[in-house]
Amino acid sequence: MSQEVISIDARTGEPTGVVGVESSSDDVAAAGAAAASVAAEFEALQRDGRARVLRAIADSLDADRSTIVELADRESALGQPRLTGELNRTAYQLRLFADVLDEGSYLEATIDHAGETPMGPRPDLRRMLVPIGPVAVFGASNFPLAFSVAGGDTASALAAGCPVVIKAHPSHPATSVRVFDAMRAAAKSAGAPDGVVQLVHGVDAGRALVTNPAIRAVGFTGSLAGGRALFDLAASRPDPIPFYGELSSVNPLVVTPAAAAERPEQIGRGLIDSATLGVGQFCTKPGLAFIPTGAGGDALRDAAADQLSGKPPGVPLNTGISDAYATGLDRLRKTVTLVAEAQPQAADSTSDMRGALFETSLDDVAGVLEECFGPTTVLVRYDDEDALLERLRKLPGELTATIHASSDDPFAAKLDATLRNVVGRVIWNGYPTGVAVSWAMQHGGPWPATTSAHTSVGTTAIRRFLRPIAWQDAPQHVLPAELRDGPVTVPRRVDGRLVLPGQ
Amino acid sequence: MSQEVISIDARTGEPTGVVGVESSSDDVAAAGAAAASVAAEFEALQRDGRARVLRAIADSLDADRSTIVELADRESALGQPRLTGELNRTAYQLRLFADVLDEGSYLEATIDHAGETPMGPRPDLRRMLVPIGPVAVFGASNFPLAFSVAGGDTASALAAGCPVVIKAHPSHPATSVRVFDAMRAAAKSAGAPDGVVQLVHGVDAGRALVTNPAIRAVGFTGSLAGGRALFDLAASRPDPIPFYGELSSVNPLVVTPAAAAERPEQIGRGLIDSATLGVGQFCTKPGLAFIPTGAGGDALRDAAADQLSGKPPGVPLNTGISDAYATGLDRLRKTVTLVAEAQPQAADSTSDMRGALFETSLDDVAGVLEECFGPTTVLVRYDDEDALLERLRKLPGELTATIHASSDDPFAAKLDATLRNVVGRVIWNGYPTGVAVSWAMQHGGPWPATTSAHTSVGTTAIRRFLRPIAWQDAPQHVLPAELRDGPVTVPRRVDGRLVLPGQ
Repeated sequence: MSQEVISIDARTGEPTGVVGVESSSDDVAAAGAAAASVAAEFEALQRDGRARVLRAIADSLDADRSTIVELADRESALGQPRLTGELNRTAYQLRLFADVLDEGSYLEATIDHAGETPMGPRPDLRRMLVPIGPVAVFGASNFPLAFSVAGGDTASALAAGCPVVIKAHPSHPATSVRVFDAMRAAAKSAGAPDGVVQLVHGVDAGRALVTNPAIRAVGFTGSLAGGRALFDLAASRPDPIPFYGELSSVNPLVVTPAAAAERPEQIGRGLIDSATLGVGQFCTKPGLAFIPTGAGGDALRDAAADQLSGKPPGVPLNTGISDAYATGLDRLRKTVTLVAEAQPQAADSTSDMRGALFETSLDDVAGVLEECFGPTTVLVRYDDEDALLERLRKLPGELTATIHASSDDPFAAKLDATLRNVVGRVIWNGYPTGVAVSWAMQHGGPWPATTSAHTSVGTTAIRRFLRPIAWQDAPQHVLPAELRDGPVTVPRRVDGRLVLPGQ
Repeated sequence: MSQEVISIDARTGEPTGVVGVESSSDDVAAAGAAAASVAAEFEALQRDGRARVLRAIADSLDADRSTIVELADRESALGQPRLTGELNRTAYQLRLFADVLDEGSYLEATIDHAGETPMGPRPDLRRMLVPIGPVAVFGASNFPLAFSVAGGDTASALAAGCPVVIKAHPSHPATSVRVFDAMRAAAKSAGAPDGVVQLVHGVDAGRALVTNPAIRAVGFTGSLAGGRALFDLAASRPDPIPFYGELSSVNPLVVTPAAAAERPEQIGRGLIDSATLGVGQFCTKPGLAFIPTGAGGDALRDAAADQLSGKPPGVPLNTGISDAYATGLDRLRKTVTLVAEAQPQAADSTSDMRGALFETSLDDVAGVLEECFGPTTVLVRYDDEDALLERLRKLPGELTATIHASSDDPFAAKLDATLRNVVGRVIWNGYPTGVAVSWAMQHGGPWPATTSAHTSVGTTAIRRFLRPIAWQDAPQHVLPAELRDGPVTVPRRVDGRLVLPGQ
């Protein structure tokens, strides 16, 4: 008998209705087969056709905005302002990838004409990136819109030309279905084949997707344990496929002695605002803050403690998260010193997640390197800059590192030179939460931050779902339009030289 | 007691001397640590410094040409003309990657200035690719120069800015040491730190390299079984690393009925020349040729049989290859029909590899899809074009596919549309052996041809050994030179627009 998929009101914990049933292994097999069967038709839409599809999906989400935001708020408790912003981001991402298609650099179109070389005669060679094939996307709990059904992974995979099978996150199934229906209808109206987007439900369905023979790549955001299990599954296939997972990060933030002396209260408050944003449920939440011993660091800590105490508790995305948070806090309480704690809203709201600020010394940092998902951060006091650098050098891979420095701060450059080796993004005098969607963004870092040297945010996320092909001495008519002779609308490398359209 | 590394004369099978001893696990650990310790210094050489290193290595190989070619010929029996060409190719690759560094597009330098966006204010973001860290390179037996110690993987990793630890192939240890010594001395003289290139010997050392914590990526060319074992090892690390392996391919070649009618003898001879080149020891050897039934196909087969009978047998790179070839031929003899066989050179040269041509029907092709490394190919006769397309659609991933067509041949476009989905390179009216080193080359295809959507030949091979970083609101002085304000010598994307140097 099929397991029902139930929508839960995050604030009350009460079920609000049955959304559907978990997908069977046959359902997943059918989804994979359907995705494979429409891949060529979807690719044949060309860049302009796919850009039209992406923009139509963005428009449809905009048009259904009030219902989507309302459902997402009920299922996630993230609040209408945040979710309205997230819907804006979701639509923006889709339109930005349409711009990426229009611009066309992502194809890496390259032509080497036949001719003599120091190695002897060379044939005509023409290379570009093509869709990798059907992609599985796992919705993330903490971004029910921007990293879920129509989120960044789906947008970049569709832009690349890949059909997408989405595994809905069980925390927001009603939102998932609503967004999916809007997306499917829009894609169809814009000329995409039926089956270019599909939705499945259930943990077993997710595992079946990763091993489905039609699936050529996976996009995932989630926990280290869950991500590692799926990564291993993808790698153990008879034909291993890339698993693009974003798994775990404590996002170290370092305050130099000069910065701590210069603006301790500002940094202390900013740190807490960032660590508690979205109830601390961001993958870029600063989980460790290295601050100097002494008066500046003390003032920073006191400001942070004060700021934290005033934060209201938040409703978790689901009880799994609040349970894990409780376990994480217990671990921290036994290991390091509790500095401040937010007050409970009401005596009976036991599942709410209350902020907590901890403190330890550099010598004891090894015990707090595990991510604790939720509104907490640990201050790590250091008094020796070289010892700090030595310790930072040994951090596991991280999504981000943040440096707070004064304007003329010789230590800061050393920090940058050290931290850049363990992260994907170095932030100066700011906070890691808030990941801009743009051409230059990098969201990903060495393992376990992510499973590969790619980004899941920003325009180059499309690269994950493409693979190169070269044609040798092929007649013009079988080449993709972008590789044919004559003027084209995309930048190309011709005989080694980059040529812009119109040149 | 350490196992000696012995150089064998490939033609006589006799040992010619002890080259060294197999590396211990301590040796490998020390090599990893040394590579990690010089990574920052090597990166700090910048693009121009590393280009100097690559050109110095190329010059040193040119200067030592006669000895290197002589050793390689003794150990591989590939002959001086081929090996002279291969040394040219090796030096050419190194210089081409120096050009790639000079040009600088590979950095993907991207700047998004701070400003307002539809998503709200955006910080200043600057992104580019940086070295991934120390790389392990496995020398390949079948290219003792161009895909071995100073070959394509090493050249692209050094260009990327990564120290390299090379696992010497046991088939040509003396060549490996000679090339390594020239490379190390040249790198040092050009300003690279000691330890930027290192050499280890032995199967155990290779496995230890793949799991060494300092190693951040692996380049490998070899068998499916060996490659899969190392791939699994890389994926099972506590911190999995990318394993760029090139494993197996039968490189289907398809002749349309029109082409078979038009030039059967030419294609038949060309096919055999390609399949027996280098004693059939190329990863792009055409192992399956789909030719039509009927008179054209028969004439093609007869020309191929005639061409094969005249080919002298060749000396294998090592006895492992000739043993595997003998096993493969036995399997083929039991499965399909032997059409022609080359004659043995002399009664006693039992280890020489003799060419063999087989024939089967499309219905029986499932039995011959496994690569048989050596001078043999199987003709697969088809009489139904749709059945052929259906069968080609189900091929495993291949490095290449080749289409022979007439100038006005409607079936050929359908073949291209089908074959492009299973390969990395589609060749028209030519042969897959001979892989040009250029900007547009793609050498790699879906699993099991390669383990990832990357190339190991051509300029984009560098991408395997790079990872992206973004800086957010960072001061100019900590940014890499290519991301600073003002004119630079590399193409950059600035606020979404591609800008060439001087614009």
